[in-house]
Amino acid sequence: MSLWFTEKQTDAFGITMKVKQTLETKQTDFQKLDMVETEEWGNMLLLDDMVMTSERDEFVYHEMISHVPLFTHPNPKHVLVVGGGDGGVIREVLKHPSVEKAVLAEIDGDVIESSKKFLPSIAGMLEDPRVEVKVGDGFMHIAKSENMYDVILVDSTEPVGPAVNLFTKGFYAGISKALKEDGIFVAQSDNPWFKADLIQTVHRDVKEIFPITKLYTANIPTYPSGLWTFTLGSKTYNPLENQRTAAIDTKYYTKDLHVASFVLPKFVEDLTK
Amino acid sequence: MSLWFTEKQTDAFGITMKVKQTLETKQTDFQKLDMVETEEWGNMLLLDDMVMTSERDEFVYHEMISHVPLFTHPNPKHVLVVGGGDGGVIREVLKHPSVEKAVLAEIDGDVIESSKKFLPSIAGMLEDPRVEVKVGDGFMHIAKSENMYDVILVDSTEPVGPAVNLFTKGFYAGISKALKEDGIFVAQSDNPWFKADLIQTVHRDVKEIFPITKLYTANIPTYPSGLWTFTLGSKTYNPLENQRTAAIDTKYYTKDLHVASFVLPKFVEDLTK
Repeated sequence: MSLWFTEKQTDAFGITMKVKQTLETKQTDFQKLDMVETEEWGNMLLLDDMVMTSERDEFVYHEMISHVPLFTHPNPKHVLVVGGGDGGVIREVLKHPSVEKAVLAEIDGDVIESSKKFLPSIAGMLEDPRVEVKVGDGFMHIAKSENMYDVILVDSTEPVGPAVNLFTKGFYAGISKALKEDGIFVAQSDNPWFKADLIQTVHRDVKEIFPITKLYTANIPTYPSGLWTFTLGSKTYNPLENQRTAAIDTKYYTKDLHVASFVLPKFVEDLTK
Repeated sequence: MSLWFTEKQTDAFGITMKVKQTLETKQTDFQKLDMVETEEWGNMLLLDDMVMTSERDEFVYHEMISHVPLFTHPNPKHVLVVGGGDGGVIREVLKHPSVEKAVLAEIDGDVIESSKKFLPSIAGMLEDPRVEVKVGDGFMHIAKSENMYDVILVDSTEPVGPAVNLFTKGFYAGISKALKEDGIFVAQSDNPWFKADLIQTVHRDVKEIFPITKLYTANIPTYPSGLWTFTLGSKTYNPLENQRTAAIDTKYYTKDLHVASFVLPKFVEDLTK
């Protein structure tokens, strides 16, 4: 039997891939979780039938959401990851020797457990002593934190289901309060081909709160359109002027790409105006 | 009935899209040609079941293969496009006022006729008096040209079927001979996720002939992996040092992206070493 999984990325377009076997399938308290072994991308985590991460291309997203802000901040010590239960962002954050503590606030404990079991190369660093895993609502964790973090990374699903609160102005205000006075945050903000409105809304909302607001991109082949955006909000440091460099092991990020990823195609740049 | 077209981009991965209707389907002298109306991308040309171009995302490929070399050359007058029967590259080339003559050497006349009929926004400029359309073998046209062109653009299909000769060292040598002493050429060179070997081979072969050889990228959502590469070979002008700027109507290309598109993700940069 030849099994193919298809993610409908829009009503009329999607990606389709050959599945060797389903490793796990369950309804968690928050969403449908499937772990599949694909032929092209290795093991892959699906939530509500959307690709979250795969062994083969995960490095792009995890490196780019992490290293751009962490190499902008001069001395990131305390980092919060909201969402990100697969552990990939935590793994990249811990590559920075300055980081003393990395907190993961993931609402769905089943995502963490399943990733530890089936995505060990991604989730392996969740056991590191610098990491504190809090299974709970990231929105609430942000709401009760003040002047605590140097960098906050929002590694959420799309704004449906449990992540809907993570795309609101109230959330960005909470992030600003939870950050120290020179803090930086980055949120994944979807793709410009199918979600142009979302990018515009996020950019406008973040800009009302953070004096430095910028959009950057990365190519993620298993995500809709392959062109992903990240919205960065910063209180003090400009990613294009305050870039640190240090030797670090990466497959996508480079010090030159740090800058180039902010240079947008015209139709994407127009979304930020 | 709900019709979906699926392009298997690898043996185990592909894209799938809803088709409103098939506008044309035929076996030409060289390949299978289908023109379909899709819901997500508008009218779309398929050759041998591979997406060639669509009304919605064609601007990325056509702008990026054209404007990078044409804004690198100080005064491009004579331009040759090999392949490119849909006319999109010609349309972008003609946006440069210096261009006096643009020759299209397309092997398959049916591609031109079908594009004129069903992709008028792409093919419309093929009727321009500056354009000379030669239906015939691009390899042979190159072979008999000498010191004739300022810029040559190779807008081919993948190296299967009629395009197989367009990915050989002999072809690049012919291009060098057909170019003037300060000429530039660009060839589409596929994607780094599924065709890393091809990119390496093309880069190595072009580098043996052109003193300045560089790879650049663009995001094309309907092409495999969404991350497309172009290989540029130049006799004199460096695209990063000799960039002209001029007001021109684009949706993807900008003067800053001209430079940034040469900054590669690490795993892609490694293919050029």
